Amino acid sequence: MYPNFVNHLKKYISLSAEEEELLLSGIKPVSIYKKEFLIKEGQVCKANYFVEQGLLRMYFINNKGIEQVTQFALENWWIADYMSLTSQSNSHFYIQAVENSTIIAIEHHKQEKLLEQIPQLERYFRLMMQRAYAAAQMRVKFFHVHTKEENYRYFIRLFPEFVQRIPQYMLASYLGLTPEYLSELRKKQP
Amino acid sequence: MYPNFVNHLKKYISLSAEEEELLLSGIKPVSIYKKEFLIKEGQVCKANYFVEQGLLRMYFINNKGIEQVTQFALENWWIADYMSLTSQSNSHFYIQAVENSTIIAIEHHKQEKLLEQIPQLERYFRLMMQRAYAAAQMRVKFFHVHTKEENYRYFIRLFPEFVQRIPQYMLASYLGLTPEYLSELRKKQP
Repeated sequence: MYPNFVNHLKKYISLSAEEEELLLSGIKPVSIYKKEFLIKEGQVCKANYFVEQGLLRMYFINNKGIEQVTQFALENWWIADYMSLTSQSNSHFYIQAVENSTIIAIEHHKQEKLLEQIPQLERYFRLMMQRAYAAAQMRVKFFHVHTKEENYRYFIRLFPEFVQRIPQYMLASYLGLTPEYLSELRKKQP
Repeated sequence: MYPNFVNHLKKYISLSAEEEELLLSGIKPVSIYKKEFLIKEGQVCKANYFVEQGLLRMYFINNKGIEQVTQFALENWWIADYMSLTSQSNSHFYIQAVENSTIIAIEHHKQEKLLEQIPQLERYFRLMMQRAYAAAQMRVKFFHVHTKEENYRYFIRLFPEFVQRIPQYMLASYLGLTPEYLSELRKKQP
């Protein structure tokens, strides 16, 4: 049951059989089809989401009415609008399935409860938040110091399988390219 | 001794007198003068830094040779290059004092040790990382959907005292403005 989720936890913390059972009783598996939404802008982000199988993206609509992708989440990644989740205020983002996906949802109040009951989970989520924040710090620099073509080349070299899984227009949005420019880059020899 | 640090901790977790003593014996107060560095690009970020008193900034040098400010840290904020800190690899950033500052440094290996000895610290740092990551998610949207002038107006309305404390060219860099454009905006009636 949810092998990715359980294995991922066990990479970072040790849980007793009772704790594992308690945790699994507190999560909610969610199957969503490609293009379905976990949250939309204006809704409260009610849960923290782990990708057991599949692929999600987070985006917002910019002031020209165009979707701007800020993040993807593959297997073993957590995703949420953490401002909305923490304060239970309205979200500024959309989280949508890019493929048919199996998601583990931990609702906000349930996560708070589980953190009290299983203190090692604090360590697990501290490590997850630190990893996400470290990546966010790097991303800011990365997008500033390289040209758009360099960003594209770097990205496809680092994540070749991932690039196969996402539609080109989403990759273009994430990298800040027009779809036309991305198409030109793809035609050139790397 | 370090009232901001101790009060900040107590807002989030309860420590026994022994735990507080253990924690305080593991930290290192650092006094740095304005313009001194905690880390420079290429050095390993050896510690997690809390601003007890003063103001720090994080920046990198972009491909035009210009400083790009990505973050400020006032009293009660933590700052580090978390990729460098976590993996003890070379940093991609500079962290420099904007004012004479008193900093609490927790060295990486010491923080790992303290987290083992005082498990509640996992909760404290989980909350700190989650807050920082939530702010980073919002920042990406914020800088995309508003004009530079809107960003400036919003920033000075939200953080009026802070804006008084930083040199204008640093604020311009953080907001992605030229110093000349910032100067024009300041002359206009808000």
